[in-house]
Amino acid sequence: MIERIAILGTGLLGTSVGLALRAAGFRGAITGWNRGAKGAQVALNMGAIDSFAADPLQAARESQVVVLAVPIYATLDFMEKLAGVLGPEHLVTDVGSTKAQISAAAARLFNTPERAAFLPGHPMAGKERGGAALGDAALFRGTVWLFTDNPDCKRSAHSAELVKEWRKWVAAMGAKTIDLNPVRHDELVAWVSHLPQFVATALSALLQEEVGGAPELKDVGGRALREMTRLGASPYSMWRDIALTNTEAIQAALLALEQRLAHLRENLRTPELRDEFEKANRFRRE
Amino acid sequence: MIERIAILGTGLLGTSVGLALRAAGFRGAITGWNRGAKGAQVALNMGAIDSFAADPLQAARESQVVVLAVPIYATLDFMEKLAGVLGPEHLVTDVGSTKAQISAAAARLFNTPERAAFLPGHPMAGKERGGAALGDAALFRGTVWLFTDNPDCKRSAHSAELVKEWRKWVAAMGAKTIDLNPVRHDELVAWVSHLPQFVATALSALLQEEVGGAPELKDVGGRALREMTRLGASPYSMWRDIALTNTEAIQAALLALEQRLAHLRENLRTPELRDEFEKANRFRRE
Repeated sequence: MIERIAILGTGLLGTSVGLALRAAGFRGAITGWNRGAKGAQVALNMGAIDSFAADPLQAARESQVVVLAVPIYATLDFMEKLAGVLGPEHLVTDVGSTKAQISAAAARLFNTPERAAFLPGHPMAGKERGGAALGDAALFRGTVWLFTDNPDCKRSAHSAELVKEWRKWVAAMGAKTIDLNPVRHDELVAWVSHLPQFVATALSALLQEEVGGAPELKDVGGRALREMTRLGASPYSMWRDIALTNTEAIQAALLALEQRLAHLRENLRTPELRDEFEKANRFRRE
Repeated sequence: MIERIAILGTGLLGTSVGLALRAAGFRGAITGWNRGAKGAQVALNMGAIDSFAADPLQAARESQVVVLAVPIYATLDFMEKLAGVLGPEHLVTDVGSTKAQISAAAARLFNTPERAAFLPGHPMAGKERGGAALGDAALFRGTVWLFTDNPDCKRSAHSAELVKEWRKWVAAMGAKTIDLNPVRHDELVAWVSHLPQFVATALSALLQEEVGGAPELKDVGGRALREMTRLGASPYSMWRDIALTNTEAIQAALLALEQRLAHLRENLRTPELRDEFEKANRFRRE
């Protein structure tokens, strides 16, 4: 049923979606659009897309499925523009890292019998650096792809079919899908994804001030230090939108960790330290 | 010159030292001692040691080099016992993670022309779990092995030769050696080794409470979460001695990170967030 897909944004995720679709056996057309021409050219050269479009809205109109793979605010902008030009013959989906605002926009702009379907999605996959050149057909294999669809959507039968088929392609790309309520989604990812990122950023920035001037001393930390700061390479451009659209949940998680670190600091010489290590051990064992 | 080595403590590090010495071409005898008989048996079966000793002090007396590969307080205990039974024909070295107390004990108990030499050492290598069975001939390859020797030691010529030869074996095991003052050592490892460990422990313990009951939600975090919590598996038994012997430096590092996280938390919606990401990016680039 799905024969034409438009990927708007051929960065790491958009390019990987194209490559993964091909690896999973998708034989239809894949058109790409990217804000910078170079990223689109790289995605084309890699075989993630067959052609690139100058006009993203026209590319969307000419496809059955539109994958928005741009930062969150750009996704919200595209949703406004696409809602007016697409109809129930289209499905729009996205890969944004926060879902409350995108799901609210979807409820406002899509998912009626006369409008296009919108399926909010969030593949829990990435690399610490972005860009088409790092695109990877296996990026989603063994990972989780979250959806925050509203089960009460009053979609046309055709729209419902498109949603079902896209979910099959996501599974075919190797991801396990989990459905969550959008508010619960944003709270959960604040703990398991955003908190680890902001910790790595804070730790890396702190160590840059403490030992940054002495590169030979960085080697001292070895594998453990490299691992705990790898995410320090993540770009601000992507995380700004996440920080702006999930501020409260991230603040709550950061505050909880600050308190936890203070508790450890005050108990370095008490038996309480054993309890913290045992709780941490349990997290890794279970 | 070195023909007999005793490894006291055949856990992960002791066993790896034995295996790495063999891999580097050491052809002399290697005797092992371990508090638990099972660890010694595993090290023997793996070829890390040729024989195991019932009496660690006798094994030490019969060797030229004694490697203390036990927790820090056990190392300090052994130093007291060995000082009286060894002479200038011996070299004692260790692998403890903090060096101020061990270096002070070395100055008090060793390193005169009539006494054994003591070279305080700290290989920056390990795994998140211990035990002889994880011993690895390649554990030290490409890593840093710190020494906190006192250049003013009044050693016999023979002792000085033993120190020089042991340093050669460490290099032959694949490690790069760096010499530091013991106080500076403890401050540095508080930043680049102890802080990352305590952060991983605090993050893992916190997440155990937040999402520990729902294992499917742990998968959501993917590789980034696994990496940021891997060290959460580290055993309390090892870290207790580190926390007790480097308390102040670890407290200072933890407090600095708490303040950094609070700063991030208060600036999720300001341009200050960009500066933190850029500083973190720089740490990973340089």
